[in-house]
Amino acid sequence: MPLLPDDSVPNPPPIITLLTDFGSSDIFVGSMKGVILGINPLAQIVDLTHTVPPHDIRTASYLLHSAARYFPPGTIHVAVVDPGVGSERRPLLVFTMEQYFIAPDNGILSGVLASELDAEIRELTNKQFLLGSIGSTFHGRDVFAPAAAWLSRGELIESFGPLVENIVRFEVSRARQESGKLLGEVQHIDRFGNLITNVSKEDLVGFAGAAQFGKLRVQIKQTEINGLHYFYADVTAGQLAALVNSDSWLEIFCNQGRATDLMKAAIGDRVEVSLP
Amino acid sequence: MPLLPDDSVPNPPPIITLLTDFGSSDIFVGSMKGVILGINPLAQIVDLTHTVPPHDIRTASYLLHSAARYFPPGTIHVAVVDPGVGSERRPLLVFTMEQYFIAPDNGILSGVLASELDAEIRELTNKQFLLGSIGSTFHGRDVFAPAAAWLSRGELIESFGPLVENIVRFEVSRARQESGKLLGEVQHIDRFGNLITNVSKEDLVGFAGAAQFGKLRVQIKQTEINGLHYFYADVTAGQLAALVNSDSWLEIFCNQGRATDLMKAAIGDRVEVSLP
Amino acid sequence: MPLLPDDSVPNPPPIITLLTDFGSSDIFVGSMKGVILGINPLAQIVDLTHTVPPHDIRTASYLLHSAARYFPPGTIHVAVVDPGVGSERRPLLVFTMEQYFIAPDNGILSGVLASELDAEIRELTNKQFLLGSIGSTFHGRDVFAPAAAWLSRGELIESFGPLVENIVRFEVSRARQESGKLLGEVQHIDRFGNLITNVSKEDLVGFAGAAQFGKLRVQIKQTEINGLHYFYADVTAGQLAALVNSDSWLEIFCNQGRATDLMKAAIGDRVEVSLP
Repeated sequence: MPLLPDDSVPNPPPIITLLTDFGSSDIFVGSMKGVILGINPLAQIVDLTHTVPPHDIRTASYLLHSAARYFPPGTIHVAVVDPGVGSERRPLLVFTMEQYFIAPDNGILSGVLASELDAEIRELTNKQFLLGSIGSTFHGRDVFAPAAAWLSRGELIESFGPLVENIVRFEVSRARQESGKLLGEVQHIDRFGNLITNVSKEDLVGFAGAAQFGKLRVQIKQTEINGLHYFYADVTAGQLAALVNSDSWLEIFCNQGRATDLMKAAIGDRVEVSLP
Repeated sequence: MPLLPDDSVPNPPPIITLLTDFGSSDIFVGSMKGVILGINPLAQIVDLTHTVPPHDIRTASYLLHSAARYFPPGTIHVAVVDPGVGSERRPLLVFTMEQYFIAPDNGILSGVLASELDAEIRELTNKQFLLGSIGSTFHGRDVFAPAAAWLSRGELIESFGPLVENIVRFEVSRARQESGKLLGEVQHIDRFGNLITNVSKEDLVGFAGAAQFGKLRVQIKQTEINGLHYFYADVTAGQLAALVNSDSWLEIFCNQGRATDLMKAAIGDRVEVSLP
Repeated sequence: MPLLPDDSVPNPPPIITLLTDFGSSDIFVGSMKGVILGINPLAQIVDLTHTVPPHDIRTASYLLHSAARYFPPGTIHVAVVDPGVGSERRPLLVFTMEQYFIAPDNGILSGVLASELDAEIRELTNKQFLLGSIGSTFHGRDVFAPAAAWLSRGELIESFGPLVENIVRFEVSRARQESGKLLGEVQHIDRFGNLITNVSKEDLVGFAGAAQFGKLRVQIKQTEINGLHYFYADVTAGQLAALVNSDSWLEIFCNQGRATDLMKAAIGDRVEVSLP
């Protein structure tokens, strides 16, 4: 979590973040911003990313969860990867971790909700907070954007619609210990070709103790990596290695290269951590 | 049009949107923003898109027109796809639909002006509102950005330059009825590979009446699609189908796939709508 | 430099620009913005670009220098292309040209500092202005973003850390006269495939006088270009030609085409200017 300032700025403009698979070549995102600013011109709109692979709800869930913790309390996150747009799937407004999440009910909030016992979840039904005319293919603009904008103007969460309970969630895959090994998988591949696993620092400490990090053996796709390093430039350029990254995940990297290309690795590839 | 709030926020910061073919790898767009904020630090700058295909004025015109209606009155749109930069082509400031448009005189405003009888059009000649030193290759930064920033500070439109009449416009292609069919074409292909045609909901209603939408036959490139659906997930994954999208255009899509790849379709491809 | 307004807006929000190689598919940049807004919700954050080729410090240096001059005094530029993140390389805060630059000590500020005799350079050591917990792989978020945000809230530059002297700089390659020719190289290739050389308008005037621009011969890779033009559309579509661009660099272009593809040219390619 960020170091919160002792002396906060009074009356900060509300923050609305956007995470979608809409890309940047169309004006989908621009239209959403127009709608938001038409309702609340004081909103600070922040793009998380708009290049989630089309319809890839799992990646969206991972990215949203990773980013949200770095935003201040009160932030409103709008996440729209929505292959079921226009169907019966419900539009949701969730309050958890002192932040708001507005998204379709399709599992995109699984990451955010995985570790939260306490969340208030409502369905967006109040038409007063949606666009006057709602189409069937672009609820990012017609439903989610206006709801976020009205919420940012101080409308109370209970005015948006009724409480709901059973929403769509998928299991967020966690690393587990088995036969003396720690078993996980690649959960994300970043811009630099780094393989981010679902093995957390906490998992590693529980498995081996931090003092043993230098001795851990990481196996992925026939390749064995010995010992964790502390930063990328700690190994020579082109070398494959592993470290605990700044989000506390075990990460496999190639200094100044692309581990994913070198390994022909993909999301879901199995990762085994062991002690010799 | 967006649902406009009953109780607007007082003194909203002015909105300036940017639509260009400058891409995101260079600092063209960043420099424009620096110039704008140097003149009016209170401007809310919104990117519509910067990945219009280089020099593609028609796509820019379509995208600008599609996005503008979702912005509040008073918005200033800056649109720069400008292969003739530095030549005699005039820089324009247009007021129409309660919004401002700043762009080169090369047809990029054809979409916005197509349905408007009432527009005030001026040439940007007042050097007071341009950068002190103007190069010949980047009027986005030296001419259009500063003009937008000064306009956003409340300078009157008549101070920017004289009224002009005949500006460059291309014909925006419309669907038409012929021999009992409705003939149109693909006017845009979006990020998801959906084919957006120039056949509007209004055209369809005029042709067949909304009650007949389920029976309409859409033909494109030897392929026949029967009946319009209401949303993407209404057909099975991988199926080709058609619907009226949230911008009221007839759209051909492939649920969770890419219609453009499946059909090898391109902008300009003919589309025929008929009743069996 | 931009035309600065005579009557500036009072109390403008502080501007923080971001230039990185983090791409737009991850939430690296979004997380930085969350951290910044958590500390200073009034900051105006401007993206310069996030698609610097991974680890390409020279391109970052060129782009940062090109953009900075178009921002108003007081702007805070954060530039993070940082292959050495987590190692001993120092995080820097530099004040020069009436602006602030926050970046790793790896040469990324070489362009900005090339022409500046007068710069105050400090190492970021004061933990009060960094995130509470700092990882080893993402100082953009944990170190540079919070430092920028605190600086934008008015913290004095001397509070951030001690003065330092010898920082990493690479030689910014300049054109030179030799045997009656002006010798330079391609220093950047832009989105349109234009080749931007390191031969400045000043170099050209010193070599031949502006009156001779029409007679200059530009040679690159066996191809000879005769005479400089004034704007792109001054030659027929598809023709290769040269001009002095809006940043005052000699630029080789192909009207409505891509000079880089036509010439198979790359950064570093030699350019010779001569008089017949």
